[in-house]
Amino acid sequence: MIEDRVVRILEDIVGKDNVTTAKTDLITHSYDATQQKFLPEVVVHAENTEQVAKVVRRANEEKIPVLPRGAGSGFTGGTLPVEGGIVLVLTKMDKIIDIDTDNLTAVVEPGVVTANFQKAVEKVGLFYPPDPASQAYSTLGGNLAENAGGPRCVKYGVTKDYILGLEVVTPQGDIIKTGGQTMKNVVGYDLTRLFVGAEGTLGIITKIIFKLLPKPAAKKTMLVQFETIDGAAQSVSEIIRGKIIPTTLEFMDATTIDCVRKATGIDIPEACKAVLIIEVDGDPDVLEDQASRILKIIEPLGIVGTRVANTPEESEDIWKVRRSVSASLRKVNPNKFNEDIVVPRSKVPDMIRALEGISQRHGVPIVNFGHAGDGNIHVNVMVDLKIEGMDKKAHDAIEELFQAAVDLGGSLSGEHGIGIAKAPYLGMELDQAAIAYMQTIKKALDPNGILNPGKIFLEKQPNEVVGH
Amino acid sequence: MIEDRVVRILEDIVGKDNVTTAKTDLITHSYDATQQKFLPEVVVHAENTEQVAKVVRRANEEKIPVLPRGAGSGFTGGTLPVEGGIVLVLTKMDKIIDIDTDNLTAVVEPGVVTANFQKAVEKVGLFYPPDPASQAYSTLGGNLAENAGGPRCVKYGVTKDYILGLEVVTPQGDIIKTGGQTMKNVVGYDLTRLFVGAEGTLGIITKIIFKLLPKPAAKKTMLVQFETIDGAAQSVSEIIRGKIIPTTLEFMDATTIDCVRKATGIDIPEACKAVLIIEVDGDPDVLEDQASRILKIIEPLGIVGTRVANTPEESEDIWKVRRSVSASLRKVNPNKFNEDIVVPRSKVPDMIRALEGISQRHGVPIVNFGHAGDGNIHVNVMVDLKIEGMDKKAHDAIEELFQAAVDLGGSLSGEHGIGIAKAPYLGMELDQAAIAYMQTIKKALDPNGILNPGKIFLEKQPNEVVGH
Repeated sequence: MIEDRVVRILEDIVGKDNVTTAKTDLITHSYDATQQKFLPEVVVHAENTEQVAKVVRRANEEKIPVLPRGAGSGFTGGTLPVEGGIVLVLTKMDKIIDIDTDNLTAVVEPGVVTANFQKAVEKVGLFYPPDPASQAYSTLGGNLAENAGGPRCVKYGVTKDYILGLEVVTPQGDIIKTGGQTMKNVVGYDLTRLFVGAEGTLGIITKIIFKLLPKPAAKKTMLVQFETIDGAAQSVSEIIRGKIIPTTLEFMDATTIDCVRKATGIDIPEACKAVLIIEVDGDPDVLEDQASRILKIIEPLGIVGTRVANTPEESEDIWKVRRSVSASLRKVNPNKFNEDIVVPRSKVPDMIRALEGISQRHGVPIVNFGHAGDGNIHVNVMVDLKIEGMDKKAHDAIEELFQAAVDLGGSLSGEHGIGIAKAPYLGMELDQAAIAYMQTIKKALDPNGILNPGKIFLEKQPNEVVGH
Repeated sequence: MIEDRVVRILEDIVGKDNVTTAKTDLITHSYDATQQKFLPEVVVHAENTEQVAKVVRRANEEKIPVLPRGAGSGFTGGTLPVEGGIVLVLTKMDKIIDIDTDNLTAVVEPGVVTANFQKAVEKVGLFYPPDPASQAYSTLGGNLAENAGGPRCVKYGVTKDYILGLEVVTPQGDIIKTGGQTMKNVVGYDLTRLFVGAEGTLGIITKIIFKLLPKPAAKKTMLVQFETIDGAAQSVSEIIRGKIIPTTLEFMDATTIDCVRKATGIDIPEACKAVLIIEVDGDPDVLEDQASRILKIIEPLGIVGTRVANTPEESEDIWKVRRSVSASLRKVNPNKFNEDIVVPRSKVPDMIRALEGISQRHGVPIVNFGHAGDGNIHVNVMVDLKIEGMDKKAHDAIEELFQAAVDLGGSLSGEHGIGIAKAPYLGMELDQAAIAYMQTIKKALDPNGILNPGKIFLEKQPNEVVGH
C-alpha cells in the first residue's frame, strides 16, 4: 500500500486537486474496455511534462508502479494497474500546440482526443489518417501506446507511420526528445518508433510531433453484398492482386449483418451473407475509374447487390452501418471477447474458414468483421459467461484461433496490442530469443520495473483484484 | 591481433574459401565512401544465416569486433573496422527469395543490390520506392542499416517505411525474427524499426520482408530553371504549402549547375542560378492537372525556363542531369565532404542563406543539391586537402552548418546515418539523457560491444590506421 507520506509528495508535485485516493475514483480508474478491473492505490492527474517527470522520478525512487492512462478505452488491458500503484492520468494534457500548414506537421499533447485532432487538422485542409473505432473518445497518447489502426490503414498505414518525434519521460524521470520536425532523421536509434506500441512500458509520451497529409479531394464509398463469405474474402485478395489499394476494405460476416439488421432495421436482403464496404479517395477524376475497376474485378464473385454513395450523406449512411456493428453484437450473447488477429491479405479466406471450424468445434458463436483489406479481422467470440464452462470454451477457442492466425503467417494483434489479454500467447508468435531480447531492453531501461508492470511479458501472472 | 586459432575456427564455419587475411583483401575491405581507411584483421564472407550466427556467437565468446558489410558505399563510415576485427561480408547472401504479388510483399537476403530488387519487383508491376543515389551498387542490407532515402522519399517515405519484418542475428549469435508478412503487427516492441537505422550495432540483418506498392501508372518530369536560389527554395515551400506532395523535388544550386554544365555540356542559360527537378506520378489523368497546378504556384518566383518531359526518354534525359552531379562536383576541388542535413521544408530558404554565409566566412566552397522536397539537402564542402589548413577550415564549416541545421529545427542526417563521421556531433542534436538511453540499449543487448564498435556513440575516439 502506498504510504500517506508518498501521497503528500504527489500532492506537492501536481497539487492537491490532482491527487485522489477516494474509493470511487480508484474504481473509476480500475478498468478499461477488457471489462477487467484492478484497483490502483492512487490516481494522479498530470498537467504538464515536468509534473509527469517528477512523479515518475519519485515513483522510481520509491519503487511504486506508474500506469500512464488516457481514456482507458484499450482492448488488452494496457492501462490496468495489475500490481496497484499510481494511475497517472494524462487527459488534462490536451493541448494542440501547433498545426504547421507550411510543413504539414503538428505538435500535440498526449491527452488530445483523436477525433478532435482530426477535426482540427481537416479544418486547415490537412489529414491525419489513423481512425480507430474509438476515435470519438480515445486519446492520441493511448493511440500511440498501442499503435492504433482503423479502416483507413489499408491505404495509409497505422499510427506509427505518422509520428516524427516525441517528448518522453523515461523510467528514471528524465525528459528526452526523440526524432524531430523533419521528414527524415537517422540520428542514433529510432527511439520514436520504439516508444510507439511499447504500451507505456519504456517511457511516458508527453508530446507528439505528427506528420500530416494534404486532405484527399474526394472519396467514393460502396457497400457490396455477397452471396457467400468466400466471395467477399476472395474479393479482398482479388482487389489487392489487381494492384488497387482502396482507402478501406471493411468486411462483415453473416452474423454481423443479422445483428446490424436487427439493431438498425437496415435493408439488406437475406440472400446477402457477407458485406464489403469499399472506399477509395483522392482526385475526383480518378475515383470513378477506380471504383468501376474494383466493381469489375469482384463482379464474378457472387454479388447480391451494390450500393454506391453519390453524396457525402449517402456515404455517411454506409459508414453508420459499420459503426453500429460493435454495439449490436451484444444481441448474440452478453459477453464479447474481441480479438484483432492479422493474416497476410491473401489468407483472409483461409482464416475465415478456420474460424468457422473453431466456432463449430467449441460451440461458441464467433462473429467476424473488420479491416479485411490489410488482413486485420476483428474476431468476436460471443458467450454468456453466466453459463458454466463458457469461459473455458471461449478461451480454448481464442487460443485455437490465435494459433490458426500464426499458422497462416499472421499475428496475434494488428492494432490492440498485447497488454495482459494476449500476454499468455506471446510465445505463440515470437521465438524465445526475440522475447528475451525485448525483455533485456525493458530491464535495462526500467531496472525497477515501475513503468506499467505486468504488461506484454508474462513475468508475473496478474491477479485480478476486483473480478469480472 | 586475431589468433590463427580463431581464423581456423572461422574457416570451419564458412569454409576456407570464405576467409582471408591476405593484405590486399584486408585493404579492399578497409574503406567506404568516406575515403577513410581502417584495416580489418580478417575478412569473412557468409553464405547463409547459420554461418552469420556461428561467426557472431564465436566472436562474442572471443570478444572480437564484427563489422557487417554490404557494398561499402556508406557515407559515414558505418562499416569501417575502426577497432579491427572481422569484416563480415554479406554480398553472397543475394537471393530474392519471394515476390508475392497477392500480398504485395517480398522476402530477400541482405546482399541483394537495391537496383536489382527494384527491377525485379517492377517486372511484376510492383514498386519499391526508396532510391538512394547508390542504388546501382549498394545493397539492401546496407540501405536498412543506414535507413537510406533518395529523391522519391518526398512522397513515399524512407527505407524504414517499407520493412514489415526481419530475421536478425543478435550480438549473442541467436537468430530472431521480428515483425512478419502482415501489414499490421503490435506484438511486443518494434524491434524491426529499432534494427533499421541502427547501423549494424544491435544485430545483423540476414533476411528482410518488404512491403511493396503497385507501380504508379505514369509519371511526369519537369526541370525548372530559376533566376535566384531563393526563388527555387521558396518554390519548394510554396508547393508543399499548396498541399501538393510531388514524387521528387530535387534542387541544384548555381555551382552545381556550373559543374554539370562543364561536365555534360547541357544547355542551361547563365541566367539560371538554381534548378528544381519536379516529378509527379500516379494516374495519367491527374498528372497533367498536378503539373500545371505546380507550375502556376511557382510562376511568380522568377523562372528562367521550364523543360517538361513528354516521353520517358525526355524524362530520363532530365534525370541524367541530376545523376551527373556527384561526379562533376570534383571539378570544384578534389576533396568533398558530403553532408546530408535536413530542415523542416519551410526552412530550406533559411538554410540556403545560412550556408552562403558559412561558405564566405570560412573561405570554403559549399555546393548544395539534393532532396529539397523533404528538406534534406546534400551539402558538399569542397576543398583541396593538400592545401595546409583546409582540413580544419572544412571541419569548422561543417560544425557550423550542422549547428545551423539544428537551430532551424533540423537534423544532422537525413539518410546517411552517423557512423564515425558524425559521431562527434551527436550531442549537438540529441540531449544527453536521450544518448544515455540509447547507450543503455546498446550495452544491454551487446554487453561485450562486439557488433560494429566505435559507431554512433563516441565512447572511444577512432584511430585511423591507414590514413586519408
